[in-house]
Amino acid sequence: MATLCRPAISVPEHVITLDQTLELARRLHAGHPQLALALRLIANTGVRTRHLVQPVEATLDHPGFTARNALYEAEAKARVPETVRRALEHAGLGPEDIDMIVYVSCTGFMMPSLTAWLINTMGFRPQTRQLPIAQLGCAAGGAAVNRAHDFCTAYPQGNVLIVSCEFCSLCYQPTDLAVGNLLSNGLFGDAVAAAVVRGEGGRGVRLEHNGSHLVPGTEGWISYAVRDTGFHFMLDKRVPGTMAQLAPAMTDLGRDRDWDVAGLDFYIVHAGGPRILDDLGAHLRLPGAMFRYSRATLTERGNIASAVVFDALDRFFADGGADDEARGLIAGFGPGITAEIALGSWTDGHARPEALTLRGLAASHV
Amino acid sequence: MATLCRPAISVPEHVITLDQTLELARRLHAGHPQLALALRLIANTGVRTRHLVQPVEATLDHPGFTARNALYEAEAKARVPETVRRALEHAGLGPEDIDMIVYVSCTGFMMPSLTAWLINTMGFRPQTRQLPIAQLGCAAGGAAVNRAHDFCTAYPQGNVLIVSCEFCSLCYQPTDLAVGNLLSNGLFGDAVAAAVVRGEGGRGVRLEHNGSHLVPGTEGWISYAVRDTGFHFMLDKRVPGTMAQLAPAMTDLGRDRDWDVAGLDFYIVHAGGPRILDDLGAHLRLPGAMFRYSRATLTERGNIASAVVFDALDRFFADGGADDEARGLIAGFGPGITAEIALGSWTDGHARPEALTLRGLAASHV
Repeated sequence: MATLCRPAISVPEHVITLDQTLELARRLHAGHPQLALALRLIANTGVRTRHLVQPVEATLDHPGFTARNALYEAEAKARVPETVRRALEHAGLGPEDIDMIVYVSCTGFMMPSLTAWLINTMGFRPQTRQLPIAQLGCAAGGAAVNRAHDFCTAYPQGNVLIVSCEFCSLCYQPTDLAVGNLLSNGLFGDAVAAAVVRGEGGRGVRLEHNGSHLVPGTEGWISYAVRDTGFHFMLDKRVPGTMAQLAPAMTDLGRDRDWDVAGLDFYIVHAGGPRILDDLGAHLRLPGAMFRYSRATLTERGNIASAVVFDALDRFFADGGADDEARGLIAGFGPGITAEIALGSWTDGHARPEALTLRGLAASHV
Repeated sequence: MATLCRPAISVPEHVITLDQTLELARRLHAGHPQLALALRLIANTGVRTRHLVQPVEATLDHPGFTARNALYEAEAKARVPETVRRALEHAGLGPEDIDMIVYVSCTGFMMPSLTAWLINTMGFRPQTRQLPIAQLGCAAGGAAVNRAHDFCTAYPQGNVLIVSCEFCSLCYQPTDLAVGNLLSNGLFGDAVAAAVVRGEGGRGVRLEHNGSHLVPGTEGWISYAVRDTGFHFMLDKRVPGTMAQLAPAMTDLGRDRDWDVAGLDFYIVHAGGPRILDDLGAHLRLPGAMFRYSRATLTERGNIASAVVFDALDRFFADGGADDEARGLIAGFGPGITAEIALGSWTDGHARPEALTLRGLAASHV
């Protein structure tokens, strides 16, 4: 069965603190009628530091979509390969072992996708399938895990490399002044993540079941307006309340496998903002500590879009992972409103004889 | 095993003929030093008519990326649902039977993707997985078929809806004056296509094997420059020669299954331009008539990007399909340079008892 191995994460060298963010908001929006609200919302995110691909002052400058997207490409090419190499090392594989690259990124656009460049420059085989996904936003981290899981279910000996490259600061739009934008400007950060899903072997989260859920009628709640100036992030104030609908979707998915999702051993969920974690805890009656990895990502790096789940997962690995067979959940949330949910159990990578015997049978049942 | 059912196609009501295209090129580029070459290249495409979402004069106007992309969204919402309904009818399924929607389109950008709107407005279940792909260009038709095949291999009872929505005319850039651009302006057309891949049952192409191939070092040959004015299509003059590398990739893929790809019964390939079909025929030593469906698509509709393979496939169905078990190949070609190739055989939809018995076993071997 497919195992999600330890991710590799990298964050850029430029750092902005909460104090600097608040100071900046006060300076830039001195006359804004809802400045006090925006400052309160930013402070409440709990985000203490974020990393940016450029110094703050350069980030504030909008040189046009042409230059922004060129910068996205240059920064991706500068930062992704090293992260990919570490993810491959964590999985004990080389580029020649990879059958598909899932590349998720909603903060820049390239055609061909970075997948072609990675194959050409890093030693992946020309036969490597390319699955670039740009339109699932923050849910794409969960979607990447789930599509990789599906691929390894179809090809039990296959291996999938996931790359998440999110430079949210390159979507900063100085003319967007709604409270949702001011909040977003204090919430999002930049990061690159990579992880391998191994069809056979590997230590990490053995992926057992997955599902997607779209909350009906919420297409407009998280969206991009696509303009001459690039992607403009639009955030509806109802978004933080979506756990009321997504928590039951998780419960339903667990029931498919007779798993009680309120009683799992670990939770790696997208930390879009603090309320998502608070509400999910309330709905599932779980103590806040169950979301400590996601909370740490939010606190130290901000909302790094599709990379959040990988950053939180890396913290789980760094903490020693879990006991063999301990059960958990991974979930990405994003535009749609869409949740991409995975259920899995920890494996220390020492396949037991009975598991090997059952593998062929299990593959045909998934 | 997964069966690709009959596609549904729709083309917009505004038509431009070859004569009108040539006349327009003469008028717009009267002083262009390579006008004669451009006119010759356009005439040589063999494209007689193309369909556009707007009248020609409106197409020539570039109102900015903001307005262009808004038009993309409006036209997609106006034209996709009816096409999807027909594709579902062809497959004998309703929206509630669909487990994943693969939406491929490289000529506009939305987040959330149109998948969310389709689920909300057409009766698909909230659990429907969304796989929007924007960055595989013309190869995305083949990629959609292959990822749908993989999904149904993982979930043998699953059903996947593929939607290809390509309004190439909305990427017309009046300031791009390279010969490759002038040629492209006379080559691309608009269309919407949809098709269902059924995990069980269905009449059409039973998908048996698939693969991808990236021609090393050709990332820059077909690409978008992403600018304030939107997507700018860049075409290298070496592109028409790529069959020299892609034909062997097809031969290799056939060998995986002991199939001689030069001896198949049908070929549904992306007709990017006439030379692709000519060269592929030469490399595989096949008569031109073997590509008659793709050629008809090119002649009557131009290069409709990822929708070409579905339009050609629809012509194959309209022609009666093939004898049961007749073998064929479907291939999309696009940026990368990437080929997405599928091997399959015609099925009349009457499952034989022995096929049913073997299905479970086969699924675990793919």
